[in-house]
Amino acid sequence: MAASKAWAVVAGVGPGTGACVARKFAQAYPVALLARKPANYEPIVQEIEAAGGKAIGISTDVSDSASVKNAFEKLDKEMGDAQLAAAVFNVGGSFIKKPFLELTEEEFLSGMDANGKGGFLFSRAALPLLLKATNLEYPPTLIFTSATAAMKGSAQCASFSTGKFAMRSLAQSLAREFGPQGVHVAHAIIDGVIDIERTKAWKVSDAPDAKISPHAIADSYWFLHTQHRSCFTNEIDIRPYVEKW
Amino acid sequence: MAASKAWAVVAGVGPGTGACVARKFAQAYPVALLARKPANYEPIVQEIEAAGGKAIGISTDVSDSASVKNAFEKLDKEMGDAQLAAAVFNVGGSFIKKPFLELTEEEFLSGMDANGKGGFLFSRAALPLLLKATNLEYPPTLIFTSATAAMKGSAQCASFSTGKFAMRSLAQSLAREFGPQGVHVAHAIIDGVIDIERTKAWKVSDAPDAKISPHAIADSYWFLHTQHRSCFTNEIDIRPYVEKW
Amino acid sequence: MAASKAWAVVAGVGPGTGACVARKFAQAYPVALLARKPANYEPIVQEIEAAGGKAIGISTDVSDSASVKNAFEKLDKEMGDAQLAAAVFNVGGSFIKKPFLELTEEEFLSGMDANGKGGFLFSRAALPLLLKATNLEYPPTLIFTSATAAMKGSAQCASFSTGKFAMRSLAQSLAREFGPQGVHVAHAIIDGVIDIERTKAWKVSDAPDAKISPHAIADSYWFLHTQHRSCFTNEIDIRPYVEKW
Amino acid sequence: MAASKAWAVVAGVGPGTGACVARKFAQAYPVALLARKPANYEPIVQEIEAAGGKAIGISTDVSDSASVKNAFEKLDKEMGDAQLAAAVFNVGGSFIKKPFLELTEEEFLSGMDANGKGGFLFSRAALPLLLKATNLEYPPTLIFTSATAAMKGSAQCASFSTGKFAMRSLAQSLAREFGPQGVHVAHAIIDGVIDIERTKAWKVSDAPDAKISPHAIADSYWFLHTQHRSCFTNEIDIRPYVEKW
Repeated sequence: MAASKAWAVVAGVGPGTGACVARKFAQAYPVALLARKPANYEPIVQEIEAAGGKAIGISTDVSDSASVKNAFEKLDKEMGDAQLAAAVFNVGGSFIKKPFLELTEEEFLSGMDANGKGGFLFSRAALPLLLKATNLEYPPTLIFTSATAAMKGSAQCASFSTGKFAMRSLAQSLAREFGPQGVHVAHAIIDGVIDIERTKAWKVSDAPDAKISPHAIADSYWFLHTQHRSCFTNEIDIRPYVEKW
Repeated sequence: MAASKAWAVVAGVGPGTGACVARKFAQAYPVALLARKPANYEPIVQEIEAAGGKAIGISTDVSDSASVKNAFEKLDKEMGDAQLAAAVFNVGGSFIKKPFLELTEEEFLSGMDANGKGGFLFSRAALPLLLKATNLEYPPTLIFTSATAAMKGSAQCASFSTGKFAMRSLAQSLAREFGPQGVHVAHAIIDGVIDIERTKAWKVSDAPDAKISPHAIADSYWFLHTQHRSCFTNEIDIRPYVEKW
Repeated sequence: MAASKAWAVVAGVGPGTGACVARKFAQAYPVALLARKPANYEPIVQEIEAAGGKAIGISTDVSDSASVKNAFEKLDKEMGDAQLAAAVFNVGGSFIKKPFLELTEEEFLSGMDANGKGGFLFSRAALPLLLKATNLEYPPTLIFTSATAAMKGSAQCASFSTGKFAMRSLAQSLAREFGPQGVHVAHAIIDGVIDIERTKAWKVSDAPDAKISPHAIADSYWFLHTQHRSCFTNEIDIRPYVEKW
Repeated sequence: MAASKAWAVVAGVGPGTGACVARKFAQAYPVALLARKPANYEPIVQEIEAAGGKAIGISTDVSDSASVKNAFEKLDKEMGDAQLAAAVFNVGGSFIKKPFLELTEEEFLSGMDANGKGGFLFSRAALPLLLKATNLEYPPTLIFTSATAAMKGSAQCASFSTGKFAMRSLAQSLAREFGPQGVHVAHAIIDGVIDIERTKAWKVSDAPDAKISPHAIADSYWFLHTQHRSCFTNEIDIRPYVEKW
């Protein structure tokens, strides 16, 4: 891939949003896909390559500093002179809903681990590369996939919600520090059920298009990436037209 | 224009954001430009027509119900079978900064008049037309141009800020009522100085691109218009990369 | 009342919150009660006087500048050397819930009229008096009674919500301007049904105390009034323990 | 202390807010003070005892589950039949301000560790006791001391801010789950410099009372504790009258 001028990385790639974001950015850049298990990124790598794009998958645990460091060192070599144009942190973390007093310490911490610590490790690895990429067509971009739980702590959802609140705070802090250095940091609040294999059976409404198209999320992320540096959006909410909110 | 399938309307057209939004949407649709004075819309109408687009200007006071009603009746006739694809309320209202106890009643009310009442009259005229336009390429869209003052009431800015808060409330209320009917309602928080003729002399930073490009705002509005109905954004913030916030 | 050192005024006095706030503040100060109709304040004036307090009622339309001016001129005379220690704006405005396109212009504007314009006129009359009262036991205080509708624009509630958003903006703007001059400005978000005569038949929950005690609201307002100037609260939310939010 | 009907616990007791909160609640209840080092709680324990109150100090690391568990087991025995009326989590965590890319992993995680994990461990230990205490004079209360950093992620403050965001999320989640069970959960946003020994030399303004009195914070916490269950406040902001915000 060394001949490419720019590349993108997506952490948290499974059969949903991450895959669609990877496909979308692969139309413009070689993409690196990070996920815990090869089974999560391999089909998408193959699909992108089959469609004429370039993709590489690396097994990575975003909550583990050595694992993240190792992935980015590998990618830095692999990508040669190319610059990192976009980094998407799409790690959901487990959604745990149960009475607070029944949560184990490990369960409670899993939200902050995945989204707070994971967001930190990913940002720390990606930002030095993004900072070098300010002469590309679009401003270098760091996007965090978030959720309504970043805005509101619901009953019995403390684990998921503390992680998303922490991640939102991180996205704001990074936007304020790295924005002036030319890096676009954005936080996308996904408010609704995403229309993927795993949610096929979930009934949310009788109306058509009541679940969020992950392709449409990818379009929104691409749009954020292309925004002019005089016109950065830090936060967007995304929800189906029929969603109650 | 009767042969066109869709049209757009922009209220509050002057040499800045309104003009850029009109130009952008004119690449896809005939556009109607509403402004108090012909001098505000005539040059843009001519420019759009010269570039091969279609545009019509109507002198309108958005705070006056008869004036708004009259404008939309005219447009309805003029546009024939075409459907209203997008309506942009870009009325700023006067920015008044002065000690609260020196504000006249008229000055104080001018914010709510322009943005609250004006937003109401414009929405009431546009929504029945937007509701009929759900079979076009993109979901029918109603966008409000707003400001940081919609989020925070600053000292000595009560007039401007009450108007913007009221408008934000209206945008939320309409999104919740008309979203499920297929209309995309969005509120854009413009946080920064816009780079227009009037602000040329304003020094905001030594950095380049420190003022918001109105073309970039127009790109963002067009993006909002094209969002899939499963993926509506209700609120975006827009600010230069160097802005303090 | 001329011998008193301090007095308080409550606008929007009926059988609910306003009456309880008046009773509470009457334990410390002579109180002036403003309401459109004498029937709204007379019973409370009598009750307070019967309990050994001092109270005066004045028929006032808070949305009418002449009426508000007239009331405060009368009070200024009546209160002699006493200083205005606290002013409470407790005007609800009509709660109108109906489809947006069925709202008349007058209905829509009634929210901003009562809460935006009314808040302005009341503040403009009270603030010059509050500014003189910085040597009393407690910092001079201006409190706005607000609602969840100040935080969220719900479907079909645009009239009420635009008024409450505007009032919240006003409260913030005044806090930032007059706080440094020693005046405590606060915005109280009442989130729930208040337990008054009019709501007796409303069923909100099987639990006891599921409706907000107006006496408890009055206690909270009195607490806000007594806060030290190094420790002003600008915004509190108030809701029953069983409320969903 | 076994004869007492109710007790209170404050975690994070040093010479500032924690001490004042302990003194205030000690006027009504025996109080337990938790801090890492005896030097932090001993002087206050002695002072409270000297003034005729009851106090007990326990060395506790709120980020360590065994330490928190141990402290509450000790207290449960010590307090006999008394019920836990109020629990205050006043753990600040280290305020670290430095460029993001210079933060060590340990530094970054310290915020979530102190405020997120610490808040979880403290709540998990306190809530079962608070749930039993619903027949006391005031509703059982759990208060979190927070900061502006819970509302806004500032540049170079990601460690502190992610911790405070996570804690705010926790406070909301617990309020929504345990409010209906009668426990009052509140989040206090302290926005300004607190007037304590450590900040004596800090110049924030020429005005008097420009730093927050920790006694006034304690008054506010006591007020929150006394609120009627029909009238719970979940969030208050507290700032000096001269503070810019």
